[in-house]
Amino acid sequence: MSEKRTEIGDLGEFGLIDHLSEKIEIKNNSSLTGIGDDAAVIEGGDHVKVVTTDLLLEGVHFDLSYAPLPHVGFKAVAVNVSDVAAMNAIPKQITVSIALSNRFSVEAVDALYSGIRAACEHYGVDLIGGDTTASRSGLVISVTAIGEAKKEEISYRNGAKVNDILCATGDLGAALVGLQILEREKQVFLANPDMRPDLEKYTIVTGRQLRPDARMDIIHELKEAGVVPTSMMDISDGLASEIFHICKASNVGATIYEDKLPIDKQTFDTAVELNLDPITCVLNGGEDYELLFTIDQKDFSKLEKHPDIHFIGHMTKPEEGKFLVTKSGTAVPLKAQGWKHF
Amino acid sequence: MSEKRTEIGDLGEFGLIDHLSEKIEIKNNSSLTGIGDDAAVIEGGDHVKVVTTDLLLEGVHFDLSYAPLPHVGFKAVAVNVSDVAAMNAIPKQITVSIALSNRFSVEAVDALYSGIRAACEHYGVDLIGGDTTASRSGLVISVTAIGEAKKEEISYRNGAKVNDILCATGDLGAALVGLQILEREKQVFLANPDMRPDLEKYTIVTGRQLRPDARMDIIHELKEAGVVPTSMMDISDGLASEIFHICKASNVGATIYEDKLPIDKQTFDTAVELNLDPITCVLNGGEDYELLFTIDQKDFSKLEKHPDIHFIGHMTKPEEGKFLVTKSGTAVPLKAQGWKHF
Repeated sequence: MSEKRTEIGDLGEFGLIDHLSEKIEIKNNSSLTGIGDDAAVIEGGDHVKVVTTDLLLEGVHFDLSYAPLPHVGFKAVAVNVSDVAAMNAIPKQITVSIALSNRFSVEAVDALYSGIRAACEHYGVDLIGGDTTASRSGLVISVTAIGEAKKEEISYRNGAKVNDILCATGDLGAALVGLQILEREKQVFLANPDMRPDLEKYTIVTGRQLRPDARMDIIHELKEAGVVPTSMMDISDGLASEIFHICKASNVGATIYEDKLPIDKQTFDTAVELNLDPITCVLNGGEDYELLFTIDQKDFSKLEKHPDIHFIGHMTKPEEGKFLVTKSGTAVPLKAQGWKHF
Repeated sequence: MSEKRTEIGDLGEFGLIDHLSEKIEIKNNSSLTGIGDDAAVIEGGDHVKVVTTDLLLEGVHFDLSYAPLPHVGFKAVAVNVSDVAAMNAIPKQITVSIALSNRFSVEAVDALYSGIRAACEHYGVDLIGGDTTASRSGLVISVTAIGEAKKEEISYRNGAKVNDILCATGDLGAALVGLQILEREKQVFLANPDMRPDLEKYTIVTGRQLRPDARMDIIHELKEAGVVPTSMMDISDGLASEIFHICKASNVGATIYEDKLPIDKQTFDTAVELNLDPITCVLNGGEDYELLFTIDQKDFSKLEKHPDIHFIGHMTKPEEGKFLVTKSGTAVPLKAQGWKHF
């Protein structure tokens, strides 16, 4: 090994992915697109297949001191389904690999799988394979999801055009605020194990953190409305970060409006209680698993009455940059703070 | 969680897989087969796709004190390609997810990926996606491989018929013997760090452990010879264990002959040096990644001159059981000891 040592933290997750991707070549005809989107696309007959995978580690992606095993199982599937949704595709199959230390009993594995099966049922996907192995430390879960779409219906990150309308589904920031509440209550419990955390007034935000739902409902509704987004991503790293990805891939700029950003009342109130700026939670909170997409202006009328699609801004020329227009009318540069694991 | 606690070790890896598979249903038309073979099979147009996945953990599946990172990367791909080969399919795409602690530098990740890329080149597969994340402990690698085959050319585990000839490729037991040597030298080194391990006379066996090669060459040669195995598996858990799997799935028995079992001279000599029975190494050694398959007798003449395919026995009626005929002519019951992670 070379004497030089570069820390991974110096590159960051996206920097590391870019660095590793540089040397990767695609050679097989059946590989339509590779690294760089929510999922890869391969030939699959009259439909194409999309393939995506996520690796989840105890202590990094979930904390079993507050995350029930069925929720962990459900979430592991949902985050992959969300990546399939982000390609405008329908998930069909998943594989699930798990590594377990001897701290886990068969009953614990059953609890995990009850959540995995519930997600399979909910999203209509088949669990077709996997691997089970021992772990020296915590629980590791690796899920790969395969979905289908017509080739012309796939939404990549790089299709956004100037003047397209930028849309976000549901509401944002809840999962981050929920995580802060769960972490706070964990610290209270660790300090005094007799204290029972009172989480009842936080069920929306904690639920969004513990058991997010991939927005397959939106994908089906877009199909019914006859709308193919010009670009799409799921919001896993934070709204601002995802907007940066679309702008970079599509070579466009973006302007979004603070008063259009969707936030749930409980998210807002809890953020204030935690001394967090609600808009910062919306812009930089991760793990909401909502969809961010752009549509051609001609499609606006097909979606304008949808109760859960919010038109938060529009795409601009790349040299116009990326801006948030505040409620007071000031345009401030967007920052992609994102969600850092490293 | 229920009060009952059943240890995973009580079920074992295969018992756990059976237990978890019981409740799994396949519902989508495009899911042709699910859990229970080397890979799952899904619809993919005029060809079907096979999908397989493996999860590899530092300290369980590889030991970085003697496994060079490029070899670890190569092996992580090769073991998945081997599962694709075991379906008589051609690998086309892989996804690779890695979790890393801050012990790993960018240069270390580059070394790992140099092996992954070398394997992609060697097997003609495209790296199309993955996930990178932080780990609290060691290195975790999850690979999913996707291959293609004509539907009628897929070899499942359940197609072996009475009187089919049982074939094994290459030679067996080397990876287990290599592991014993590497572990022995590691202990010597730990006891006295000034000792430099002398591994030169063990390069075949250690090479088989550290950088196994999936037998795609055999898959291509079977195609050229016009032979579709009636059943096939790769030998990852040990010959005897794999024979049990084929017998169970195909509802047949098997008789194999000690004097037909393939073993390399270095494997034999090193086993003797280690006070291991060479035939036990052949029968129960894991990780050889050779192929075990059955052919119809009519196909024997097409393969009989192949230098690397060994005709080790034949399939019998299920009530005849599973036997090894020793060099002295005694039939002893086969035992599936296998390769245990739990």
